[in-house]
Amino acid sequence: MSGYAIGVDYGTNSVRALVVDTATGQEIGTHVFDYPSGEAGILLDPRDPNAAKQNPADYVQGFLESVRKAVAAAGSHAGFSAGKVVGIGVDTTGSTPIPVDRTGTPLAMTDRFRDTPAAHAWLWKDHTSFAEAQEITRKATERGEPYLAKCGGIYSSEWYWSKIAHCMRTAPEVAEAAHSWVELADFVPAYVTGNLDPDTCPRGICAAGHKAMYSETWGGLPSAEFLDAVQPGMSRFRYKTKAVPSSHQAGLLTAEIAEKVGLPAGVPVAVGAFDAHMGAVGAGAATGVLVKIMGTSTCDCLPAPLDQELPDIPGLCGIVPESILPGAYGLEAGQSAVGDIFNWFVKQLSPAAYGNDASAHAKLTDAAAKLRPGESGLVALDWNNGNRTILVDPLLTGLLVGQTLHTTAAEVYRALVEATAFGALTIIKRVEEYGVKVEQVVNCGGIAEKNAMVMQIYADICGRPMKISRSSQTCALGAAIFGAVAAGAHPSVEGAQTAMTGFKETVYQPISKNVAVYEELYTIYRTLHDAFGTKEWTGSLGHVMKDLIAIRAEARKQD
Amino acid sequence: MSGYAIGVDYGTNSVRALVVDTATGQEIGTHVFDYPSGEAGILLDPRDPNAAKQNPADYVQGFLESVRKAVAAAGSHAGFSAGKVVGIGVDTTGSTPIPVDRTGTPLAMTDRFRDTPAAHAWLWKDHTSFAEAQEITRKATERGEPYLAKCGGIYSSEWYWSKIAHCMRTAPEVAEAAHSWVELADFVPAYVTGNLDPDTCPRGICAAGHKAMYSETWGGLPSAEFLDAVQPGMSRFRYKTKAVPSSHQAGLLTAEIAEKVGLPAGVPVAVGAFDAHMGAVGAGAATGVLVKIMGTSTCDCLPAPLDQELPDIPGLCGIVPESILPGAYGLEAGQSAVGDIFNWFVKQLSPAAYGNDASAHAKLTDAAAKLRPGESGLVALDWNNGNRTILVDPLLTGLLVGQTLHTTAAEVYRALVEATAFGALTIIKRVEEYGVKVEQVVNCGGIAEKNAMVMQIYADICGRPMKISRSSQTCALGAAIFGAVAAGAHPSVEGAQTAMTGFKETVYQPISKNVAVYEELYTIYRTLHDAFGTKEWTGSLGHVMKDLIAIRAEARKQD
Repeated sequence: MSGYAIGVDYGTNSVRALVVDTATGQEIGTHVFDYPSGEAGILLDPRDPNAAKQNPADYVQGFLESVRKAVAAAGSHAGFSAGKVVGIGVDTTGSTPIPVDRTGTPLAMTDRFRDTPAAHAWLWKDHTSFAEAQEITRKATERGEPYLAKCGGIYSSEWYWSKIAHCMRTAPEVAEAAHSWVELADFVPAYVTGNLDPDTCPRGICAAGHKAMYSETWGGLPSAEFLDAVQPGMSRFRYKTKAVPSSHQAGLLTAEIAEKVGLPAGVPVAVGAFDAHMGAVGAGAATGVLVKIMGTSTCDCLPAPLDQELPDIPGLCGIVPESILPGAYGLEAGQSAVGDIFNWFVKQLSPAAYGNDASAHAKLTDAAAKLRPGESGLVALDWNNGNRTILVDPLLTGLLVGQTLHTTAAEVYRALVEATAFGALTIIKRVEEYGVKVEQVVNCGGIAEKNAMVMQIYADICGRPMKISRSSQTCALGAAIFGAVAAGAHPSVEGAQTAMTGFKETVYQPISKNVAVYEELYTIYRTLHDAFGTKEWTGSLGHVMKDLIAIRAEARKQD
Repeated sequence: MSGYAIGVDYGTNSVRALVVDTATGQEIGTHVFDYPSGEAGILLDPRDPNAAKQNPADYVQGFLESVRKAVAAAGSHAGFSAGKVVGIGVDTTGSTPIPVDRTGTPLAMTDRFRDTPAAHAWLWKDHTSFAEAQEITRKATERGEPYLAKCGGIYSSEWYWSKIAHCMRTAPEVAEAAHSWVELADFVPAYVTGNLDPDTCPRGICAAGHKAMYSETWGGLPSAEFLDAVQPGMSRFRYKTKAVPSSHQAGLLTAEIAEKVGLPAGVPVAVGAFDAHMGAVGAGAATGVLVKIMGTSTCDCLPAPLDQELPDIPGLCGIVPESILPGAYGLEAGQSAVGDIFNWFVKQLSPAAYGNDASAHAKLTDAAAKLRPGESGLVALDWNNGNRTILVDPLLTGLLVGQTLHTTAAEVYRALVEATAFGALTIIKRVEEYGVKVEQVVNCGGIAEKNAMVMQIYADICGRPMKISRSSQTCALGAAIFGAVAAGAHPSVEGAQTAMTGFKETVYQPISKNVAVYEELYTIYRTLHDAFGTKEWTGSLGHVMKDLIAIRAEARKQD
């Protein structure tokens, strides 16, 4: 079974290709290609800070360059040859839908629309369609549609149908020219296998289920009546394809692409999925194993047995069969800011002794690590960017309580770290309340790898060991795993994970005296969480943050 | 009526003498003397951070040097001569009681006790007697005594009887040698007029009423039974003197002192009072005129008509007849941290662009002044050092809510300024709820003089014009006014104020559109104030800050 799989990981600013030994998981060649268009790969609109588009041509060029150079880099490894590459997997950001013509060609790659922003890829972080998102939520709720039950009850401006509706309203010439909209995760496999026809090209269950309200329960995408009720004519984009997991092949590498990247033609390419989901697989996700992908925000992925009755879990971002692992529900949760909160503190409020650049993190961490749990007297809420799970409310803000005239920057920094860990525990408690066991927690991403204090605090607050993924490129590794499985090099994802993934030796064990203090502090966190975050709470401070946001909006409107 | 009065103002680290024209208020000579003992005049105990004593000899030396040099400085002013000095007034910190022997000599100035800390002056900020303070509050409450109704319901560790009880328990040899305890405000006039006999020396109503539970209502100091219930034998220190306002003379300058300071013997010296109260008079306090002395903390002084029925006002620090002005109730309130909160922010959380020294205030103020009310989306509670008025609860802490990933240091700084202004408004609302009108607000102290943004925010939040005292040495000026009045150079304090005080030309007027926004924000501040600061509030978050303090205390106890 000696062979190699390639994972291709499309991030927000660049694409990475990684060549991996399918027997051992050894990573033998990699290359990162920065998208050449716009600012760090993003096409901005100076008049609208919510806009974020990408040039689909960058994706194509990115595949060719990153794979070619990763393969070339692997060439220096004894035993490797291009002929031993058995499969390719692709993960991407999302929801990043691309309008395409009848042939599946992105409109932005045609002469007519080359300079039309709306004809480009609508990057996940494009928030121009917030009004349409609210409308979808409202109409689904009013009509009693079942579509939102599996995605936390609120449709997002980042998602598929919001963006299509907004395009139809604001760039009708693009919408009219579009034959279909294809997620980036589906576009890349379709393109490199020559299966571009948008009516038949493979669609991944991960993007369809988490972002387009696709479910076998109601026979696929939402009904034509509903889509037309949101935006007349939108049902035209209701594709009929059955969405499948990434253990399926999207097709075989075309001779033309193969030649350009230095591989043999006919290498199987797996159906694409989102980076976090494949990253979870690369980190060792399994039923009962929660993977936390920790970065500026956090994405939590937890597979749960498909054969078990699973209720709707209020506040989860999504519950989609097979979106992470074949044969398992994929549960997705997340915290809308984690590293971003620490970065905010460093940029805005870190005193001169620590500085305001990235190096401050290490210094603040050193000082904060010397503190005992509870000794600062501080508790914070981790809502500087709203709350994704379990409150699903972007109109929440941060809170800090307990400061005295002696409170130090390191104490505040630690309180913010603790707040994110309390947020993490709140997610674990919620899924367990609904019968899904969290038996292990595996962390990946820069914070998990580099910051022992953060991980110890997570262990102490969650009261469970924190493992760290062995690979630091888990997304690309996860994609390579699906490449190997789709190609048949491993009979199952689980088997491929056993061979190709692992944990670092260091496991952060909860320290019992810390656990005891943090249990008390969590009670306080949870009181504040419920007081400020819910309407049901008796004291009803639920209005405070929203009132402040309304006053802020009014104040900023004045001239 | 051409003449001069001298005000002598005893602060925490130094004493200032000021020579003032009684007809115009012109300040023609001043001198500041730094106490030579200890650290910046304070005798610390390396084993007990709560201890803060002062050497009574410094007070004596301070009077002699500061008055002599102020008189000398005034000598260069045309028209001045020492013979034209008509009276002297004295204000001091407090409660700063001094144990004295049968002759009225401070024990610390006798050979036996020169090196005994407990025999020195117990500076206002000495908090060693916190247990005794709690005991006094508890016993007065249990016994249904009336004594606390006029001082906010809680006796403080800073005050007279707490300190005496603590001395009796921890330094019995000092307590036994003491014939009486004399407030610094009473000691200085007694000393310089030779009226040292502690059984007959004049006692000021300001110190007696605000700190020793003295009231004509119950015939002077608390009953012997009560004092002995707190600490057996303490009734021995229950002096029988009638306490009087500072319009009374304490006596005439002795020939010996007069010679040392370059004045004629026999100059009348007024009864002493506390710095804030005389400062209020120097700033123009009158019935309906609230004076805010703004520094690291704030002291609010408001005279109210004596002939009007005045109920107990919950949460006020003190209501004492004639403690500010003869013929008026003296209402005292305060905020336990104002400038201290801004200083804390600058020291601990100001980023490198502003720096962490005192110069950061101006830079942060420049940036914060550009913000509109409400545009930060932040609200803070000003409780980093507890809350003195109206909650009278030292076990409260700070709170900040509304922060996002874009919140800046200037926004937080402004939110902290606004929080102190909301605290100021809460005090005004409380006294008005109980029928005491606040017709004008006059501010004095460094912040009021130097920071136009702070004053504009106070005007906008309180919805009233903010005036600024003309003199920047209002405490010493107030003392000089009482010197003039006690000497008969002015028939009344009001008359002396008319001649000798004034406001700066700049008056900060409320800006109506700001007032409207701040009314909304005050509703939020008040919701948080009641939620976190009271037990009665339905949501009962009243436990949160106390739980955090308890957890903090426990965490710091561990080894």
